[in-house]
Amino acid sequence: MRRGHNFAGNGLRVARAALTRLMEPSDMPGLALIAALGPEGAVSFIEGNDTSNAVIERQVTEVLNAAGIERWAGLAEVLGRWRPRLDDAAPERDLETVKRLGGGLLVPEDDHWPHALDDLQLGAPIALWCRGSHPWIPDQSRCIAVVGSRDSTSYGANVTLEIAASLVQREFTVVSGGAYGIDAYAHRGALGAALDGSLAPTIAVMAGGVDRFYPSGNEDLLRSIVDRGLVVAEVPPGTNPTRYRFLQRNRLIAALCSVTVVVEARWRSGALNTAHHAETLSRVVGAVPGSVYSANSAGCHRLLREGSAVCVSDAADIAELAGAMGEFLATEPESTAALHDGLSTSDLLLVDALPLHCATSVEKLSVVAGLSAPTVMAGLGRLEALGLAERLAGGWKRKPQ
Amino acid sequence: MRRGHNFAGNGLRVARAALTRLMEPSDMPGLALIAALGPEGAVSFIEGNDTSNAVIERQVTEVLNAAGIERWAGLAEVLGRWRPRLDDAAPERDLETVKRLGGGLLVPEDDHWPHALDDLQLGAPIALWCRGSHPWIPDQSRCIAVVGSRDSTSYGANVTLEIAASLVQREFTVVSGGAYGIDAYAHRGALGAALDGSLAPTIAVMAGGVDRFYPSGNEDLLRSIVDRGLVVAEVPPGTNPTRYRFLQRNRLIAALCSVTVVVEARWRSGALNTAHHAETLSRVVGAVPGSVYSANSAGCHRLLREGSAVCVSDAADIAELAGAMGEFLATEPESTAALHDGLSTSDLLLVDALPLHCATSVEKLSVVAGLSAPTVMAGLGRLEALGLAERLAGGWKRKPQ
Repeated sequence: MRRGHNFAGNGLRVARAALTRLMEPSDMPGLALIAALGPEGAVSFIEGNDTSNAVIERQVTEVLNAAGIERWAGLAEVLGRWRPRLDDAAPERDLETVKRLGGGLLVPEDDHWPHALDDLQLGAPIALWCRGSHPWIPDQSRCIAVVGSRDSTSYGANVTLEIAASLVQREFTVVSGGAYGIDAYAHRGALGAALDGSLAPTIAVMAGGVDRFYPSGNEDLLRSIVDRGLVVAEVPPGTNPTRYRFLQRNRLIAALCSVTVVVEARWRSGALNTAHHAETLSRVVGAVPGSVYSANSAGCHRLLREGSAVCVSDAADIAELAGAMGEFLATEPESTAALHDGLSTSDLLLVDALPLHCATSVEKLSVVAGLSAPTVMAGLGRLEALGLAERLAGGWKRKPQ
Repeated sequence: MRRGHNFAGNGLRVARAALTRLMEPSDMPGLALIAALGPEGAVSFIEGNDTSNAVIERQVTEVLNAAGIERWAGLAEVLGRWRPRLDDAAPERDLETVKRLGGGLLVPEDDHWPHALDDLQLGAPIALWCRGSHPWIPDQSRCIAVVGSRDSTSYGANVTLEIAASLVQREFTVVSGGAYGIDAYAHRGALGAALDGSLAPTIAVMAGGVDRFYPSGNEDLLRSIVDRGLVVAEVPPGTNPTRYRFLQRNRLIAALCSVTVVVEARWRSGALNTAHHAETLSRVVGAVPGSVYSANSAGCHRLLREGSAVCVSDAADIAELAGAMGEFLATEPESTAALHDGLSTSDLLLVDALPLHCATSVEKLSVVAGLSAPTVMAGLGRLEALGLAERLAGGWKRKPQ
C-alpha cells in the first residue's frame, strides 16, 4: 500500500485488513486511534503526512484513559512505528490470498463476529483472518479451550485425546493453539470424534498467518483442521509467529471460550499465561490433576493450589463448568452405596453390636451398643425389615448379606 | 462397678474413666449431663435409682439447647442406655491396665490436655486413653493429619512415606488412624524420619481400646508407635472398634491437627469423613492430586473440585498451610528463568525481530518489529547490554546464547 493511496475508500474490511498489517496485536494507541476515527479514518491518518494533530492526540488520549491507560508515547512516536510498515501493506492482496485459501476476514461489523472478544475491550483484535470449512466461530458458551505444554507426557496425551473427543460428542467446539503436545492432541481428539459437518469440532488460533502452518511438524494436522474445522489469526497472511504474538494469541483463545482447561503445564508454562488471561476475563479455568512426581503437572497443581482453577477429571466435569443452565451437571461416579448408609446413629450402633454368629439377647445388645432396651427393640424391628438383622430362637444376630 | 458404689469419691480421673465405659463417643445427652453435674456428679446420678429428675432433666436440656440440639430422648431413655453398662465398668482396673501398658488417662482438667479438642465443644471426648513414649500431644499447630484409603496404590504409598518423613524432619507430628494403607504408611514414614526422642513423630488415634492392636496385621507397627510415639483412644481398654467408633475417631484426628491431608481416597471414603470433620472445625484440608485414571485419587479430586481442600504436592506445601507465621512458606520449584523474562513489550518485539544470521538495519527492524526508529535504537542499546543483540558491520543481529 503506497502512501497517498486513500485506502479507506475501499471499505471497512479492507481498512481493517490493512490495520492488522500496520499494528501488532494489542497495540493500545493504535486501537484507540481506530476507536476514535474508525478503521478508514485511522488508515487515512496513518497514510497522511501529519506528525502532530492536537485534536486526534486528545481523542486517542481520552480513549486510552477510559481504558485505564494513563500514559502513552504520543502520536509522533506511534506513527513512527506504523508508517514504516505502509510499504509492505497490501490488504487487497491479503484478502485475495485468504479467499483463495478458502477463508476470509471476519470484522467486528460482521453479524457473525464472536462478541465474546468484546470482553477484551480496547484490546479486542482489529479483525480475524479465518480459514476453514466453517464460516463462523460458535458462541462462547459452546467453546472450550484445551491447552497445555508442548512437551506432554503419554498421560497428558491420553487425557487430552479423551477430553477433546468427549467434548465434541457433547457438541462443544475445542479451541487451542497449533503447537506440539497438548494443543495437537486436543485437535486430534476433537477431529477423531467429529461425526458430521454441522459443527466445527476444533479451532486452531495461530500466532502467525493462517497461510503459515507452524510448526511444520503439525502441517498435516493443521491442514485437517482447515478441512474440517477452522484456523484463525489476528495477524495477516505471511506473518511469522513471534514470542510476543504467541502471548497475544493466548488472550484470544481465552476470550473465545467459556472454559479454559489446562491439561498439563510445567511450573512456568505458556499454558498458564492462557489460564491467567481467562481468569482476568472472568472465564472459568479448569486444571487436570496428575502425579505430584510429574513436572508436567506442576503448573496445573499450582493453578489448583492458588485457587485459580477448578479441578477437572473428565469432559463431564468440564461440561458442568460450561453449562450455566445445569444442562451438563456431572453425575457422581457409580459406586455401590454401602448397605449401612442412611441408618440413624442408634441403628448404626445396633448393627455394629449384632453378633455375626451366635444370636444374643436384647439385654446384651443394650450393653454392647450402649442403647436402652426399648431403643434396641425398635431398632431390631427396623433392621429386620432392612434385611440386616435376623431373629432366631436364641435371640438376634446379624443377617449374612 | 457395682451399683450403689459411689465412685465419684475416687476423683475426677476415675469418674471420667468410668464415663468413657458407660457412654459411646459423642453421646450428646451424656456429655450434657457431665457438663451439668460434673463427671463425679454424673456418675453418681447414673449409679443411683432416679429414673426421672425434673431439675437434672432441665439442666441437660439447657446444655443441649445451647449446643443447638433442640430435641432429645429424655433422661429415662438415656439412663436406659448407660445403666446396663454399669456392671461392666471397672475404671480403676482400666486405669491400672493402661498404667501397666505404660500409659494413662488424659483428662480435660490436666495441664497437658490438648485444648484443640475444645473446638469440638459439647462433642469433645470425655477423656483420652494414651499409651506411648511421649507424655503429651503436641500443640495443634505442630500436628498434621495424614489420612487416606486402606487400599492404597504404590503411588499413594510413596507420596505418603515422603510427606510423613519430611513433615517429621520439619518437626511436625503426624497424626493418623491405625488402618492399613495410607494410615500405616504415614506412621512408617514418620517413624523412619524420627531422629531423636524429643518429639513424638507420630500419633495413632484408635477406634478401639489402646490395648487392642487393630487390625492385627498392623500389630508390629502399632507396637513401634507405642515405643516411639503415642497411641490414643477415647474408648477404654478392651473396647472393640465399631463402624460408629471409627467415624467418631475421625473427628478426633481432625480436631487434634491444624491441617488434615488426604493422600488417596476413593469417591466415597472414610478419609473424606475426616476431611469434612476438619472443614467443619475450620481446620485446613489438603488433598494430594493424582492420575484422573486412578479411582484411589477420585476422592481427593472431589475435595479439590468442591473447594473443600487445597492442592498439596509435598511437605513444603503442607507446612505452608500449617504455618500461619510465614515460617514455612513453600519455595517455588527451581526453574531456569527464561532469558527474556522482564523485558518490556517493545524490547520483546525487538528481540523477536532481530535476525539470527544476517545483520539488518534499524529501518528494517522498525518495520519487522512495528516500532519507531528511535524506539528500535534505544532498545538495541539495552539488548546489547543484556547480551541479546550484537552490532556488526551490516547492522544488528541476535547474539547467539
